[in-house]
Amino acid sequence: MIVLPGPASKKLGEKISDLLNVKKVEVDFKFFPDGESYICLKGDVLSEEVIIVQTTGPPQDTRIFQLVLMVDAVKRCGAKKVTVITPYLAYSRQDKCFLKGEALSIEAIAKIFKAVGINRLITVNIHEEQVLSKFPFPTKNVSAVPLLAYYFKKKNFKKSFLLAPDKGAMHIIEEAKKVLNMECGYLDKYRDRYTGEIRMEKKRVNVKGRVVIIFDDIISTGGTMIKAAALVKELGAKKVYAACVHPLLIGNAEELLYESGIEKIVGTDSIPSNVSKISLAPLLSKELYS
Amino acid sequence: MIVLPGPASKKLGEKISDLLNVKKVEVDFKFFPDGESYICLKGDVLSEEVIIVQTTGPPQDTRIFQLVLMVDAVKRCGAKKVTVITPYLAYSRQDKCFLKGEALSIEAIAKIFKAVGINRLITVNIHEEQVLSKFPFPTKNVSAVPLLAYYFKKKNFKKSFLLAPDKGAMHIIEEAKKVLNMECGYLDKYRDRYTGEIRMEKKRVNVKGRVVIIFDDIISTGGTMIKAAALVKELGAKKVYAACVHPLLIGNAEELLYESGIEKIVGTDSIPSNVSKISLAPLLSKELYS
Repeated sequence: MIVLPGPASKKLGEKISDLLNVKKVEVDFKFFPDGESYICLKGDVLSEEVIIVQTTGPPQDTRIFQLVLMVDAVKRCGAKKVTVITPYLAYSRQDKCFLKGEALSIEAIAKIFKAVGINRLITVNIHEEQVLSKFPFPTKNVSAVPLLAYYFKKKNFKKSFLLAPDKGAMHIIEEAKKVLNMECGYLDKYRDRYTGEIRMEKKRVNVKGRVVIIFDDIISTGGTMIKAAALVKELGAKKVYAACVHPLLIGNAEELLYESGIEKIVGTDSIPSNVSKISLAPLLSKELYS
Repeated sequence: MIVLPGPASKKLGEKISDLLNVKKVEVDFKFFPDGESYICLKGDVLSEEVIIVQTTGPPQDTRIFQLVLMVDAVKRCGAKKVTVITPYLAYSRQDKCFLKGEALSIEAIAKIFKAVGINRLITVNIHEEQVLSKFPFPTKNVSAVPLLAYYFKKKNFKKSFLLAPDKGAMHIIEEAKKVLNMECGYLDKYRDRYTGEIRMEKKRVNVKGRVVIIFDDIISTGGTMIKAAALVKELGAKKVYAACVHPLLIGNAEELLYESGIEKIVGTDSIPSNVSKISLAPLLSKELYS
């Protein structure tokens, strides 16, 4: 087995290779002046099972294409099997068409991944697990929520309130609850699917005078988190923490989240960022040997 | 037949549909706040041959992915056949691996195009025509060089000198010469394949006191054109014009080209730009009916 840390997940890939104690092959990566990507493997992969580690956060299309190029190079060099670890899988929020005429991006990606020769895909807390059914090869979705929960457990959070910013995130809260054993609840969120605009309704959640940890899978522009934080503050929460698996943190999201009064943001290195305090390396290494 | 003007070639696609006098279907296109592309067809394509017009200039990966999404949507809506017109085909400068471990981007693209369901590809003045052999469906490379040459013929250029910035571009000059019937020559250019750095050697070309038109397929950062222009000026050229099929004009290339003393840049709408004075629509429309 050989690990190939891609340009989007260099450190994570290196950690996985260290933990597994298997050889890693470096990737020489650059952009040409016109913006095209160039990739060259700096080592041998002949007849090996190769694990490519490459997240596909923004810029998603470039990250996906770099991944495609790595798979091409690895196959060209005679790899026996190609497993891709892409902790954040782009275009995975939509698992069906809502309007006639829409493209189904994830199905196109599944076809692309198959065509270039990927044999197996491992991802982390995918937004819609059903999208994995589109992939015509083995896939696995692993959860980093227990890791996030243990982070708060170690920091001695007690009698806090676990909050899901919407009902859809309650499965995350249920997972966190197994570790943290705290009271929990969710807010009612409505999102305009086309414009992305969010409306959140006030609801009775018992947060007065308490510390609240809001868990979600993704923090993108931060809009949901900010609205949820404002709402629980209004309801009397003492302190608000934000936890997520995938800290996309588009634009100045991090700044806006702190400005909204959130005490601390805790994320994983699914997307390398300032808030990536937890590494997925142990979880993913274990998965490779399970 | 239905024409689908993609977001990267909206005007060109509309012109082609007008010239062919066939229905066009608009594409509703947007970026989500996190940078993912969204595409939805605004009309019916059931059982039709669909012509998707989408160039893949910078940002190449995004333009390619938008194209993939349009193909997905068109197939999903029951199109009978999908022809793609991509005047500038990204990643087509490399037709083989030079170093062990390199990816061969264009082969990955060929696999992707096949996998999503493209049936035919039409492109314009592809840099390396051999790359088309990688595509497992019919392809066609058409030349816009005569169009560029006619532009200068109509402006009454006489006794000018046709210059190729390197020997590789001489086939372009030979084509232009058939229209313009002028003296011609080329410069000796050396490019470091990895860094992209250009060295150009002085050479006897008979340009003293004459107007020089430098023809090339692509102007990317403008480096080659600028070096060639400086060299012929040094050799006594009176005026220098630059003509190209694909005006990529990365960054401030246009400004730098004019600063280098080039009188005028003439390009096509292969890549929409300030210098796209010539439309490929008549050429491509004719190709669709040939």
